Amino acid sequence: MSVSRCLLVQAEVQTFIEHCMLAVGTRPSHARSLAEVLVEGDMRGHYSHGLNRLDLYVKEIRAGICAQEGEPLLEKESLATALVNGNNLLGPVVGNYCMSLAVKKAREAGIGWVVAHGSNHYGIAAYYSMQALKENMIGMSFTNTSPLVVPTRAKECTVGTNPISVAAPAKNGDSFVLDMATSAAALGKVELHHRNGISIPEGWGCDAEGRFSTDPKAVLSGGGLVPLGGSENTGGHKGYGLGLMVEVFCGMLSGSQYSKNVRTWRMTDRSADLGQCFVAINPENFAPGFNDRMADLLSMHRNLAPAESGMPVLAPGDPERKHIQTCRDMGGIPYHLKVVNHMNELASTLGVSPLLPTHRRIE
Amino acid sequence: MSVSRCLLVQAEVQTFIEHCMLAVGTRPSHARSLAEVLVEGDMRGHYSHGLNRLDLYVKEIRAGICAQEGEPLLEKESLATALVNGNNLLGPVVGNYCMSLAVKKAREAGIGWVVAHGSNHYGIAAYYSMQALKENMIGMSFTNTSPLVVPTRAKECTVGTNPISVAAPAKNGDSFVLDMATSAAALGKVELHHRNGISIPEGWGCDAEGRFSTDPKAVLSGGGLVPLGGSENTGGHKGYGLGLMVEVFCGMLSGSQYSKNVRTWRMTDRSADLGQCFVAINPENFAPGFNDRMADLLSMHRNLAPAESGMPVLAPGDPERKHIQTCRDMGGIPYHLKVVNHMNELASTLGVSPLLPTHRRIE
Repeated sequence: MSVSRCLLVQAEVQTFIEHCMLAVGTRPSHARSLAEVLVEGDMRGHYSHGLNRLDLYVKEIRAGICAQEGEPLLEKESLATALVNGNNLLGPVVGNYCMSLAVKKAREAGIGWVVAHGSNHYGIAAYYSMQALKENMIGMSFTNTSPLVVPTRAKECTVGTNPISVAAPAKNGDSFVLDMATSAAALGKVELHHRNGISIPEGWGCDAEGRFSTDPKAVLSGGGLVPLGGSENTGGHKGYGLGLMVEVFCGMLSGSQYSKNVRTWRMTDRSADLGQCFVAINPENFAPGFNDRMADLLSMHRNLAPAESGMPVLAPGDPERKHIQTCRDMGGIPYHLKVVNHMNELASTLGVSPLLPTHRRIE
Repeated sequence: MSVSRCLLVQAEVQTFIEHCMLAVGTRPSHARSLAEVLVEGDMRGHYSHGLNRLDLYVKEIRAGICAQEGEPLLEKESLATALVNGNNLLGPVVGNYCMSLAVKKAREAGIGWVVAHGSNHYGIAAYYSMQALKENMIGMSFTNTSPLVVPTRAKECTVGTNPISVAAPAKNGDSFVLDMATSAAALGKVELHHRNGISIPEGWGCDAEGRFSTDPKAVLSGGGLVPLGGSENTGGHKGYGLGLMVEVFCGMLSGSQYSKNVRTWRMTDRSADLGQCFVAINPENFAPGFNDRMADLLSMHRNLAPAESGMPVLAPGDPERKHIQTCRDMGGIPYHLKVVNHMNELASTLGVSPLLPTHRRIE
């Protein structure tokens, strides 16, 4: 299946997103923060959390359910913890504020654990956890999200895809970067199968009766995603438990919306009031030699003999690292032409002039 | 399949374990700590982490590879963090010390993050996370373990079943208690299928070539467990990533043994030097109303309509809660007669007189 793609330079996408957000009245520094997260999502190959989602942010600012400007508010703090009111600002604005606070606390207290309510979609979770790497610290980031996952034994979505991201520094800029939804698969993957008219693998989703289904339509219309682990027999209740664990760190600690009270995906009737959690841990407060051990752990796994030749064993973060390298080699980020055209249409409705170029075709 | 079981009173098991451990020279308070964790494991229905494992602890003390006495050593600390040398003491001695320290730090700093090296098997992970509940705090506990899990795409065991436990208090003594291995299934389950000569479900284990297998013998002889999520297609790489995340918190931060360097399961040629991590978080440092929200989250899920009648939707910790209630109703813990006979044999080799009674048969 050959799909026409075109190459966009990172800075073009960055500027384009900023201009679209400025056109709906977003504060320039906030527009820049959002653009940085979305471009990073695309660079890492997580297109479902990049440019492709720009229309969502534009819509929310336009509808007045996400704040155009303001600052996050520090509501409560101790040496090692903080509670932040995101003041309904764009997720990346809240995330950057909280992560920077967590790192500052970890520098003084060894750990910083910061939670926010009143936040919005923040893009890829790893964008925040990875900020700690620059300080040679472990970073973590969690967010609750719209209910898309059906708990084990149930037939209704009450849990978000609630991601977990943990980043830990090794040596020479190398790192461990876990960034995973607590569902077995992403909604975007189910949607893609639906559009292409093909069935999904067993263990991704269930129908409106809670029965496992390989029909993407059944999953998308009244059914839902399945927690990591699939059926109860293969540990699906663990994925469900992890989804709720993220909710404990996010909605429970922060006092935001939670579980099935979180606004439905892509609805713009009210603000999202998401809960998020950001952590930094300073390895210097623990045993010496952390970076050496991390380097050893990573190489130990990368050097394992693969079960199938040509399918090397990877460390968490390696697929993203490979995608970034591909972008660098190509001199830009490859996008589906359809996405770029769609974004150009969005831009024209906003009166944004510098449309994304589509002439650098690949394939 | 009717298996003869007998009922033992909690105090009988507790005393029995203590006597066996004293017979090999364990300090009385340490023997008591171990007995408490093992009995709690059985009470919660996790028989693979209870009395059944007593022979392992006895063997390790006898072989001189686990310390009979001593105290954990606080090697480094800040207001919110600590590094502890477990001094090769029994896991529960190290775990209790660290968890109590984490709670103390959380009282002052909002969070306590404590890691230990030089530790040993500590029983069920939830025993430690749940200690925070008594202080109305969130508790967490992680440990690395012997390599039993084959990473995604590999064919060699390099990751332990590395459990994650998170406990969070609701109201009136109710709580959320997640306690899960990061493998799809437990080794004990595969062993049980093997003994009973039945095949295992797809997605529990793989053979020595890294191919998924439903033959328990192939999994036990040269193969290994599969990470939570099963194949790469259904998110197995996420379970593998979570197993490594636990290693980051345990082996990486503490400087203990890690990954495939951890001693093979049930070998007694050298000390285990496990790494463990204990965390307490004080909800009072965050948004007011934590316990109310937790109670709502739990009841929201328990009240969901089940997909299959008679299979109620559960909250993490509910299966264990039910098992404890069953024990209370019966007036004791039901054990397989075979396990009790085996333990009585062990006791006779140790010269321990108060053997476990086997006359209170059930079924």
